Amino acid sequence: MKIILGSASPRRKELLERMGLAFEVIPSKGEEIITKIIPSEVVRELAEQKADAVLRELTGDDQLIIGADTIVAYGHQILGKPADEEDAYRMLHTLSGKTHQVYTGVCLLRTNPDGQTEHLFYEKTDVTFYPMTDREIWEYIRTGDPMDKAGSYGIQGVFGKYVREIHGDYNNVVGLPIARLYQEMKVFCSES
Amino acid sequence: MKIILGSASPRRKELLERMGLAFEVIPSKGEEIITKIIPSEVVRELAEQKADAVLRELTGDDQLIIGADTIVAYGHQILGKPADEEDAYRMLHTLSGKTHQVYTGVCLLRTNPDGQTEHLFYEKTDVTFYPMTDREIWEYIRTGDPMDKAGSYGIQGVFGKYVREIHGDYNNVVGLPIARLYQEMKVFCSES
Repeated sequence: MKIILGSASPRRKELLERMGLAFEVIPSKGEEIITKIIPSEVVRELAEQKADAVLRELTGDDQLIIGADTIVAYGHQILGKPADEEDAYRMLHTLSGKTHQVYTGVCLLRTNPDGQTEHLFYEKTDVTFYPMTDREIWEYIRTGDPMDKAGSYGIQGVFGKYVREIHGDYNNVVGLPIARLYQEMKVFCSES
Repeated sequence: MKIILGSASPRRKELLERMGLAFEVIPSKGEEIITKIIPSEVVRELAEQKADAVLRELTGDDQLIIGADTIVAYGHQILGKPADEEDAYRMLHTLSGKTHQVYTGVCLLRTNPDGQTEHLFYEKTDVTFYPMTDREIWEYIRTGDPMDKAGSYGIQGVFGKYVREIHGDYNNVVGLPIARLYQEMKVFCSES
């Protein structure tokens, strides 16, 4: 079985490598259309769209495509990647001293001579920040680190000094819940 | 003020670098003597001994020495580094499918012309493993990763696929609670 990661994220690639699997990366190029409101549904929807987009580019059987999408949620707001530095400031100022949720949805899409089987799941992690001063927020923004990240922060880098605690899977916040994924793959690949 | 990390751990060095501080590494060489039983007291005692041992090797004023020690606790057991592979198996088999605690004690020791001031604290993180089969445990032990680590695992590497969730600071499990440390240093260095 050939495993394909349908994501351009270097962080997801690094996490999947840690699982000790051989895989290929084919970033999904499809348009992402959100029809849901609830975060846990949004990330599953987007993960499925990503896996489907990769599937359309492939020929051949016995493949497992992994699609994933991560969002940050605070109350009723969904925070994606910042548009600019002011947007990053707005998000970090909102999250400072508070607890928010990070959701990653994962879609496992398996093709074999009999057709396709799909399995969708998501993982949620609570993340609590220490209060940050405006100076600290801008100092972080000027590192450039927030700009490609949902919620405007990367837990695995210099921002770590502001993360008071998490509840859930740390790698889920980085972008791929490899522990849950490993468990789900054991079951899914034996069944499908 | 010169900052000195009193630890030979490459993981602690990497975490402290993430805080964006300039510092020097002087591993403590003193003997470690445990007189306590409660994990939170044991790690503070050992962190203090490490910082004191570094202090004895230094001359000069206006220095901040950081000593740290990490242990894994499960029920009444304290799990240190494994003696051999069988010992690593015993620990991982004990922790499999269960929740345990990781404690890191930190000692901040500041010297200045007026004398010394000291500040001790610890951070606790709950870590829950998925159940592991014997084959999975031995596969991990054979990577060699457990052998230099308290509790026989490293959360930041290939073992991540067995960590179901944590509650607390992730970097505390790696070996240094940099978020708490950053907060404590802001207060300690302005007071002492």
